[in-house]
Amino acid sequence: MMSVIVRKETDPAGGTSETSGTSRERMIASAALLFRENGYSGTGFRDVVTHSGAPRGSIYHHFPGGKAQLAQETIDYAAGVVESAIERGAAAGDPLAALRATLAWWRATLVASDYRAGCPIVAITVEAHEPELSESADLAFARWERVLAAALRDGGVPPARAARLATLAVAAVEGAVIRCRAARDTAALDEVGRELEAIFRGARDGG
Amino acid sequence: MMSVIVRKETDPAGGTSETSGTSRERMIASAALLFRENGYSGTGFRDVVTHSGAPRGSIYHHFPGGKAQLAQETIDYAAGVVESAIERGAAAGDPLAALRATLAWWRATLVASDYRAGCPIVAITVEAHEPELSESADLAFARWERVLAAALRDGGVPPARAARLATLAVAAVEGAVIRCRAARDTAALDEVGRELEAIFRGARDGG
Repeated sequence: MMSVIVRKETDPAGGTSETSGTSRERMIASAALLFRENGYSGTGFRDVVTHSGAPRGSIYHHFPGGKAQLAQETIDYAAGVVESAIERGAAAGDPLAALRATLAWWRATLVASDYRAGCPIVAITVEAHEPELSESADLAFARWERVLAAALRDGGVPPARAARLATLAVAAVEGAVIRCRAARDTAALDEVGRELEAIFRGARDGG
Repeated sequence: MMSVIVRKETDPAGGTSETSGTSRERMIASAALLFRENGYSGTGFRDVVTHSGAPRGSIYHHFPGGKAQLAQETIDYAAGVVESAIERGAAAGDPLAALRATLAWWRATLVASDYRAGCPIVAITVEAHEPELSESADLAFARWERVLAAALRDGGVPPARAARLATLAVAAVEGAVIRCRAARDTAALDEVGRELEAIFRGARDGG
């Protein structure tokens, strides 16, 4: 879950490379939580430092490339979190289970945040113009599509169709998450989920 | 088209209420262009003044409610621009034509901006938390869904299914626009369009 409780207490092991990793990871997790609520421009290094409880100077040490580097690593981190949620669903060997796991993950994120939080990768994509951020976002979306497409192929859907349906599903779910934030309810995700399930079922059964 | 050339020359009629309206509209059009590229937090009043060529003080005169008021009116304006594009397509009485018009409009916007521009309403929704902005965005998405749902009903799709498919289509197109910005190509819109066309066709033919 991306909605981890970011620990604010001082790391008892202070100063080792182990701690360094932990403090770095904490900053990335904080950045994901802040970007997905307040956007890329709306989140500063200062906010990430405060949220993560990390020592002020350490953010420059860990991210010498500045906010773009932090954003790029946040994209990779968030890509992995969502990919894991899809993979856990796909482990049942059923594309519908993978889809339902994705939808359940997003519903939980929206409700837990009172509709303040969406996808940090979307937030970065819609306002950052650094080429390395677009490339990382592109890879992130492709990772999710790949897991869904594999689940569809495992369910008997021909490869080209599986790839197109995965693209449709990821796009529709991302769009529905935004729609749910505007509406402050999960109706759009529920409706999109219902239609996607029917489409996946039809494709699996040779439709 | 939202990619209007924002006039920078001084209005020859200077000072009349007509000019006031024009200068106001110019600021809203500029805000739409800036929000959709750089986001809500990434766009300041100063940027809107510079882009629109409006007198500096006039933005406070026209938008005494500040950036939130400007954003709210920008949402209404952008909602109308996209709604018109969908309606022009729907005028042929065919839901597929309405869908194709929507896709063509977004493809043109992405390509013309070299993939820098997306949807200003999405940009505002993913990082602004003012309730009036969520409400306006909700109404905007609902307007587009309503036009698409009407086209589907005109094509013989039962009302409840037409509403769900319209929600799916708007969400999928918005998600695909973001995906295209990350990938810097229109493949996602093409694939999503192909699947949505098949789904619309199936629903129209009783599928």
